[in-house]
Amino acid sequence: MLKHERDRLGKNAILLVLAEDKEEELFSTSHLDELQFRYCKGKVGSMELQKIVAAIETTAKRNGIVNGEIYREMHALYHAIIEAMHGVTRGQVDLGNMLRTVGLRFSIVRGIPYDNDQEGEWLAVALYGTIGAPVRGLEHETIGLGINHI
Amino acid sequence: MLKHERDRLGKNAILLVLAEDKEEELFSTSHLDELQFRYCKGKVGSMELQKIVAAIETTAKRNGIVNGEIYREMHALYHAIIEAMHGVTRGQVDLGNMLRTVGLRFSIVRGIPYDNDQEGEWLAVALYGTIGAPVRGLEHETIGLGINHI
Amino acid sequence: MLKHERDRLGKNAILLVLAEDKEEELFSTSHLDELQFRYCKGKVGSMELQKIVAAIETTAKRNGIVNGEIYREMHALYHAIIEAMHGVTRGQVDLGNMLRTVGLRFSIVRGIPYDNDQEGEWLAVALYGTIGAPVRGLEHETIGLGINHI
Amino acid sequence: MLKHERDRLGKNAILLVLAEDKEEELFSTSHLDELQFRYCKGKVGSMELQKIVAAIETTAKRNGIVNGEIYREMHALYHAIIEAMHGVTRGQVDLGNMLRTVGLRFSIVRGIPYDNDQEGEWLAVALYGTIGAPVRGLEHETIGLGINHI
Amino acid sequence: MLKHERDRLGKNAILLVLAEDKEEELFSTSHLDELQFRYCKGKVGSMELQKIVAAIETTAKRNGIVNGEIYREMHALYHAIIEAMHGVTRGQVDLGNMLRTVGLRFSIVRGIPYDNDQEGEWLAVALYGTIGAPVRGLEHETIGLGINHI
Amino acid sequence: MLKHERDRLGKNAILLVLAEDKEEELFSTSHLDELQFRYCKGKVGSMELQKIVAAIETTAKRNGIVNGEIYREMHALYHAIIEAMHGVTRGQVDLGNMLRTVGLRFSIVRGIPYDNDQEGEWLAVALYGTIGAPVRGLEHETIGLGINHI
Ligand SMILES: [Mg+2]
Ligand SMILES: [Mg+2]
Ligand SMILES: [Mg+2]
Ligand SMILES: [Mg+2]
Ligand SMILES: [Mg+2]
Ligand SMILES: [Mg+2]
Repeated sequence: MLKHERDRLGKNAILLVLAEDKEEELFSTSHLDELQFRYCKGKVGSMELQKIVAAIETTAKRNGIVNGEIYREMHALYHAIIEAMHGVTRGQVDLGNMLRTVGLRFSIVRGIPYDNDQEGEWLAVALYGTIGAPVRGLEHETIGLGINHI
Repeated sequence: MLKHERDRLGKNAILLVLAEDKEEELFSTSHLDELQFRYCKGKVGSMELQKIVAAIETTAKRNGIVNGEIYREMHALYHAIIEAMHGVTRGQVDLGNMLRTVGLRFSIVRGIPYDNDQEGEWLAVALYGTIGAPVRGLEHETIGLGINHI
Repeated sequence: MLKHERDRLGKNAILLVLAEDKEEELFSTSHLDELQFRYCKGKVGSMELQKIVAAIETTAKRNGIVNGEIYREMHALYHAIIEAMHGVTRGQVDLGNMLRTVGLRFSIVRGIPYDNDQEGEWLAVALYGTIGAPVRGLEHETIGLGINHI
Repeated sequence: MLKHERDRLGKNAILLVLAEDKEEELFSTSHLDELQFRYCKGKVGSMELQKIVAAIETTAKRNGIVNGEIYREMHALYHAIIEAMHGVTRGQVDLGNMLRTVGLRFSIVRGIPYDNDQEGEWLAVALYGTIGAPVRGLEHETIGLGINHI
Repeated sequence: MLKHERDRLGKNAILLVLAEDKEEELFSTSHLDELQFRYCKGKVGSMELQKIVAAIETTAKRNGIVNGEIYREMHALYHAIIEAMHGVTRGQVDLGNMLRTVGLRFSIVRGIPYDNDQEGEWLAVALYGTIGAPVRGLEHETIGLGINHI
Repeated sequence: MLKHERDRLGKNAILLVLAEDKEEELFSTSHLDELQFRYCKGKVGSMELQKIVAAIETTAKRNGIVNGEIYREMHALYHAIIEAMHGVTRGQVDLGNMLRTVGLRFSIVRGIPYDNDQEGEWLAVALYGTIGAPVRGLEHETIGLGINHI
């Protein structure tokens, strides 16, 4: 069974990505620390989807959330990122080709989200920001969450 | 331009749907009240996607968030729901046919999210819950957000 | 090269499906007769996508547009129908599962659309009607066109 | 309820885009004028999908069909364009990446398509042309229609 | 790095599923035994996609390829099955709703496919059979392969 | 009806593409010769999907499997390639945009696969190789098969 909601990977990842300032972030990360989850957070804006993927992968590796030498870990992260991008793009996982751009914050959280330790470690990728035309102000909010076993 | 992040439709919709108990909900709804946004919240679980859509539409109508007699409003809501379901389903907007089921909370928020009043009213549909096999415990978290002008 | 626009399969199929009354239909079919194209027209409404496909296939067979005993012909028709349904459904080729229904007229046209006779026969499936909630009046127009070699 | 078929947005948009010469266009636009619909028409060919989207947006703005300063209007138009492109691309909203190109005419029509004035203004984007390999003649017809409230 | 091609999971899974008789199967399984891969094979035909998924999951559990009590394992298998079904369905992961049916053989293979043991165990699901109209003979071949870390 | 399994287009195309060395290829091609099927085989690696499509089309034309002057043949081949790419990409027919690359072998086989000669000629495109991050070793296997009448 999944742990109680407030101790889950996805919920904590989304709360971390929604945190706007240091105070809110501290509130979020102190709970993540209690849960002994590993996490990081970053920011990326682009019309090129591959740059979004690359930014998330790089941040995850640099912060030791995943081991970039182990394909197993990168494979788990990659599919979690693409799943999260489905929520952001809602139909076609594409940005510039469809004349739209995103400005996103992202968080990555890794840990044990089930009561049964045999379920092992899982990964959550959360995205929050705006999507819209490549014109300042012509945009609305967007969210995505990807979850994978690692 | 979109209002400051804490006053946006999508962010408030997602915080409302993430609220687990009355206290958290009150925290969320009191800010929604200040912003003069209309909102409601509900719960639905099913392997049939049309039941998810129907539950959200019915709740929105019953709570006066949309006018069920005006297609324009139902059209705006419908597309927002389907966009939110893309985040939940991540690839194919389908549940039972792919042997998976969801247990979701949903929130619907309606209001003016841009500084410029000419942008008029918009709608956010936020979803949070679990998706997985039709077997208790074989599931992980999922999130979706749909935004539309109304 | 494709023939001049007014002698093409797709354009004539769409004009046939758009014809509302006998007079408009006669205008359309007399040109189709001149071009020596085979054609038929029908009507179907359903929340079940397979019924739409079946209705078009049955009408095509009954009117001798395709030979139901030859898989080659049914394969060409099937893919043309599904391609046309993409225009109707715009994202996910699904109806009832997404809580929506259609009321469609369809036309099927078969003939030689290229100057070079070696290009052989091709098929066009055109769809026009409404799509929306399973509630009278909550609907908007929709169109689709599928083209395949046969 | 939608108005009678000959007075609808989508049907008129598709008839306008199908008009090949000035005479046919005049026939179409005189009816659009009677209906007090706003409309425009243009032409674009490209392997880059974003250029198709940009051409339609630019034409709509230049002809005053939408107000480029109001995101609400651009958002309505954008989704209508993408929905129309689903009919054109039939599966994946992509061109050059899949080694195909289009030559399209497009029309945009804006007005009140329902008997009930509370339904307000809606928008139709119609596309007609050819799609195929980036080699002259290796192409077939394609059509798309997107409808949105504005 | 992936092992040499003849020792890979996917290639062996596809060769196992292609084996038509006991002799061919023995040829395939003796190599799988040498590689110390776990594997099983089954057969399923249906217009209902969820029955295909269920049949593969049940066979995998019964043969001890995965542990049905551990969600991690069922999650890995589920996504591998759905990825394999993409190859079978080519566009929309759907059968009966699109008026088509499949007759499939499937194989599931589990083992260590990379030189580096830290890559751990992975899973391959291979599918081979026919897809077509629900009419005997109106069908063509289809193949799918899904790979996931477990 | 489809011929017996060992004499089918798709199965032979997949066995040809799986053949690793000259000996295995000879085994495969001698059976293809007996069946009087036309075939060819090639290799392509790229992050650009259009290069994969172009490489397969060019190889098919150069080897006389299709006539590049006849759109009918190129249309049949194009759709078979795209269908095969669905198996390879499993969700979104896209490579570089999603920060992934492929190294593929491909085979194309053309012939009469049904007992009834009226079914005429069909085409199979088979793909086998690896897909993954643009980093050596971070990749797993992938397969695709597309079948079309020609
Ligand atoms: Mg999952
Ligand atoms: Mg939008
Ligand atoms: Mg085509
Ligand atoms: Mg709509
Ligand atoms: Mg993968
Ligand atoms: Mg087919």
